[in-house]
Amino acid sequence: MGETIQDYMTDVADWISTHISRFLPEATPETLLKSMRYSLNAGGKRIRPILLIATLEALGKERELGLEVAAAIEMIHTYSLIHDDLPAMDNDDFRRGVPTNHKVFGEGIAILAGDGLLTLAFQLVASIANTFPDINPNTALELVSKLSSAAGPVGMVGGQVLDLEGENRQLSLTDLEEIHRHKTGDLIHFSIYAGAILANANEEQLNALQLYARNLGLAFQIQDDILDITGVEANIGKPIGSDQKLGKSTYPALLGLEAAQKWLIQLIEEAKKAIELPGIQYKRLAEIADFFVYRQF
Amino acid sequence: MGETIQDYMTDVADWISTHISRFLPEATPETLLKSMRYSLNAGGKRIRPILLIATLEALGKERELGLEVAAAIEMIHTYSLIHDDLPAMDNDDFRRGVPTNHKVFGEGIAILAGDGLLTLAFQLVASIANTFPDINPNTALELVSKLSSAAGPVGMVGGQVLDLEGENRQLSLTDLEEIHRHKTGDLIHFSIYAGAILANANEEQLNALQLYARNLGLAFQIQDDILDITGVEANIGKPIGSDQKLGKSTYPALLGLEAAQKWLIQLIEEAKKAIELPGIQYKRLAEIADFFVYRQF
Repeated sequence: MGETIQDYMTDVADWISTHISRFLPEATPETLLKSMRYSLNAGGKRIRPILLIATLEALGKERELGLEVAAAIEMIHTYSLIHDDLPAMDNDDFRRGVPTNHKVFGEGIAILAGDGLLTLAFQLVASIANTFPDINPNTALELVSKLSSAAGPVGMVGGQVLDLEGENRQLSLTDLEEIHRHKTGDLIHFSIYAGAILANANEEQLNALQLYARNLGLAFQIQDDILDITGVEANIGKPIGSDQKLGKSTYPALLGLEAAQKWLIQLIEEAKKAIELPGIQYKRLAEIADFFVYRQF
Repeated sequence: MGETIQDYMTDVADWISTHISRFLPEATPETLLKSMRYSLNAGGKRIRPILLIATLEALGKERELGLEVAAAIEMIHTYSLIHDDLPAMDNDDFRRGVPTNHKVFGEGIAILAGDGLLTLAFQLVASIANTFPDINPNTALELVSKLSSAAGPVGMVGGQVLDLEGENRQLSLTDLEEIHRHKTGDLIHFSIYAGAILANANEEQLNALQLYARNLGLAFQIQDDILDITGVEANIGKPIGSDQKLGKSTYPALLGLEAAQKWLIQLIEEAKKAIELPGIQYKRLAEIADFFVYRQF
């Protein structure tokens, strides 16, 4: 078909972007609606929705089946960025090249916009058993529960706490992995897991996809740290060197840049190999993994 | 039995307090766990859990059936207080006579503790279909969805935004009702609604209990405003006159104290009358409604 993986990723990202706003309830007070919409449309790359949809499609299902859950994940990711950017956390004025939510709407509304997006996400996931008659209500409940784990105190929120506490302290490699496994890894893992569950993956496929997911999550963070050193500000949308400024430990700082890059490639190769299984059309997922190594954002 | 309504409310509140902490995952990072536990145990009266459990019991069910959902509601109520108290919102240093979460743990951790409690709440509600074989998975999904509505952008979070925007502005009675219906009413309504749904209330009972719930929610807020003028600081746990300090519109300010008190009593009488129906052991719910008028906190 001549479609490159970039074309595919752009296509899915655009599709999510087109539909995500209609999941915001019309009866929402205007300022809140504007604030939530502002951050949902602030140039996110939709990495997590793409992983969910690509997993669904790799297992032979239609992408429509994943829309609500993908939108829910993107809402949770977006809320986490809004709260992370607050003065009490990372204190960032810009993200992806545009002013952060609290710089535009004020801190109070930004906190509430984050709360609102997080709250809505669970309603979206709960709705799928109504929207799709083939989805068992217990599957929807399991996804609500797993999303809560991935996003909550033993997942993303916990990782963010560890990250806050790790600033200006020397961390071991184990500490750093613990932080990132939760702070970014758990939601990336859930994206792929949800795609597999929605597609009724068998146990072998599910295990393989979970290994792929764990490696990808870690690789994503290593690449993030590398880009903070080697990246181009216009591409990553925030100032180069901001980790160092905040006194944050990073993989290149702990391992050296070359070793970090080597490890990244190893993780990606392992991820790609894991999913070479019957019933998984693994080509696109492999290309997405490769894309993670070469991405500039 | 000689048990007064105060005895009953204390008994249910103690029962909730005993069990709520065990719903916090053990693997939570320590600071986060301490911060969430601090606010969960900071002297809340457990009004919402009491309403849920009293509704369940009025319909002849065991209170155990409501524990998870009651704990989830209390977690959401607690998270909303943590975020409301932040400097960017109401900027309160004390609540119920003890320092607010951010005064003890810092703003960053306070924001994350709120996020964590909100996220956990949905897992708790989703878990009930597993815990109680008699509960239909679709009932659990409906409660997840309704809780999200009650707590989210068209519910509590939306009400909080309207409240923030209403500070230092002259509000009409309609504006004020709109704010409070969402800011406090929707979660109180959900508490009673959830009790009714868990107890398989029939349509007539459900409608009656919802009228009771709406009236109680509004009455609760009017009494809150009245106590801000006539209350005793040691009982309500915050300085008297703090609404006025923040330039907030209140019912007594709009209607006069006497008219506000009259309206409160009228709402409570209507609430009590609504639930006099076959199959509802309404005595306790009526006593709880009366208690709302005479409460000093």
